[in-house]
Amino acid sequence: MKEYNIAIVGATGAVGTAMLEVLKEYDLPINKLKLIASPRSEGKKIQYNKDTYIVQKVEKGIFEDIDIALFSIGSSNSKKFIPQAVYEGALIIDNSNAYRMDKEVPLIVPEINPEKIKKHNGIIANPNCSTIQMVVAINSLQKAKKIKKIYVSTYQAVSGTGQKAINELKEQSRAYLNKEEVKTEVYPHQIAFNTVPMIDKVNDNGYTEEELKLNRETRKIFDDYEIMVTATAVRVPVFYGHSESVHLELKKPYDMEEIRYLLSSDPNIKLLDEPENNIYPTPLMSEEEDKILVGRLRKDLHSECGLEMWIVGNNIRKGAALNAVQIAEYIIKNNILNGG
Amino acid sequence: MKEYNIAIVGATGAVGTAMLEVLKEYDLPINKLKLIASPRSEGKKIQYNKDTYIVQKVEKGIFEDIDIALFSIGSSNSKKFIPQAVYEGALIIDNSNAYRMDKEVPLIVPEINPEKIKKHNGIIANPNCSTIQMVVAINSLQKAKKIKKIYVSTYQAVSGTGQKAINELKEQSRAYLNKEEVKTEVYPHQIAFNTVPMIDKVNDNGYTEEELKLNRETRKIFDDYEIMVTATAVRVPVFYGHSESVHLELKKPYDMEEIRYLLSSDPNIKLLDEPENNIYPTPLMSEEEDKILVGRLRKDLHSECGLEMWIVGNNIRKGAALNAVQIAEYIIKNNILNGG
Repeated sequence: MKEYNIAIVGATGAVGTAMLEVLKEYDLPINKLKLIASPRSEGKKIQYNKDTYIVQKVEKGIFEDIDIALFSIGSSNSKKFIPQAVYEGALIIDNSNAYRMDKEVPLIVPEINPEKIKKHNGIIANPNCSTIQMVVAINSLQKAKKIKKIYVSTYQAVSGTGQKAINELKEQSRAYLNKEEVKTEVYPHQIAFNTVPMIDKVNDNGYTEEELKLNRETRKIFDDYEIMVTATAVRVPVFYGHSESVHLELKKPYDMEEIRYLLSSDPNIKLLDEPENNIYPTPLMSEEEDKILVGRLRKDLHSECGLEMWIVGNNIRKGAALNAVQIAEYIIKNNILNGG
Repeated sequence: MKEYNIAIVGATGAVGTAMLEVLKEYDLPINKLKLIASPRSEGKKIQYNKDTYIVQKVEKGIFEDIDIALFSIGSSNSKKFIPQAVYEGALIIDNSNAYRMDKEVPLIVPEINPEKIKKHNGIIANPNCSTIQMVVAINSLQKAKKIKKIYVSTYQAVSGTGQKAINELKEQSRAYLNKEEVKTEVYPHQIAFNTVPMIDKVNDNGYTEEELKLNRETRKIFDDYEIMVTATAVRVPVFYGHSESVHLELKKPYDMEEIRYLLSSDPNIKLLDEPENNIYPTPLMSEEEDKILVGRLRKDLHSECGLEMWIVGNNIRKGAALNAVQIAEYIIKNNILNGG
């Protein structure tokens, strides 16, 4: 079997670390592995399987022997370094927002639109964490019933911001419980024992980038520009796992039994919906879970087309690292490194 | 000026304690104050102004000299003791769910429907906390524009459950941070660093009581049974202050400037809506606040009638104790102890 040279760019970050874990679990046929990060991490040692890797920084020619490079270094760094990596011949899977809405770049959730992978021009984009878990959860409903409208309110974990935010929630919680002064650095307001209804920067229309991502990425992934998505994105004091309260309006009246059948037949989700027995998804349950968790199914009290659901996903794994590795796995299995 | 004999039933609980604080601040003309609680609190001493009160338990005749009794002892205890209190001649303001949907019982938010107070037949009901803050926030819009539909997702503080839940969140947070075993007693799942999408018991249609309260209480308070309300009620690891992500569909297309004018002219709310300067409501801000906080105003991305907003309220004060005392104040000021 052919083996591949793979680079992880951003290997010391929260998502990069998870990418390494997932790579190990998925056992891709790797020949050479390069771990790349910012200059301040240069020289750090990282253990992977039985080998020790030295973290490198980006330099001219570093991607020349790389087949697939998984990037997770944020939008501005992606824009800075990805053109070089493409030029040097690597196929890029980028976790940032930099190229997601570029018409030349496929935006991929492998369970939904893998056929678009081969249309890459050197770059494939990984969607935003809150989008991935929502589209995986509603994919079978979109395929069978068509969705007209989505209202989604998120309850997002601090790990989506990164390791610094995880530390901030820990430190603030400790300080608050000990009645010490609570310091805020990462977020503009205290996140411990609070909710902060703003994620990413705000646009002129009042929506944040995070809210607009849920709109435009959902439409692009489903290749359905009639779906109307309006979102409210909120940070909550949770370490791992995003939750979403979702209202769907389907194009036609539906039968709840059919919805349950569609969801429980979908191998990519786990339906946990027995509230009378206290069974429903919570973010703590997602820590060891690669599937998307769905529960609290209810018919809109006033509309035959309306469906309420509660969706929980592991924002670091399926929301970022796992999705990127699944794209790499698809490329390898289908031998489409150079497009279809 | 006439002075009144007032009883607080449930005086040792979280809401009862807040009722005493609010009574002090509002300086109602009180002749005699009786503090009543369950038998296990009998004999406890509570300081109020310069006097010490001994907590009493309910006994025959205890309400005979009482003009107004504020109850906050939960639905089943309300049903047990309120008939006696009415029989003995007290006017009841009940904070529980027991009588809210009774056609003979007015359900009152004094800023919205005070004229209904005088139609009481001995009992006036205080709405649920999550309803009160939502209807106060949208009252001016309902009056000027009429609301067709509401989708609301809540982010509710543990203090809504009571003092035991406040202790549980503290204990669980401490244990989790210290990597000790986390014990769950009050809630069926860990609430520290988690979200729990179920509040109160679940009905056959899949909705919880908490979600249905938002529906039926909103319609009764506005006396508008055309408003369609569908809710998802979620507990979050916050001590005080409920947050709500609300989608409103108004009956007609609207101009955002008019909405801003209506909201900023409403003396009962505080509009905090400059997300570009990190100004928006958070539950921590509600701890010292009796007004309802509103922010993150946005027009639906796909509908001229859709409006998104973020609403935060103090669930213990305006959501319970303050609303009840405001009802008592209205009764006293308008001299309608025995109905209109």
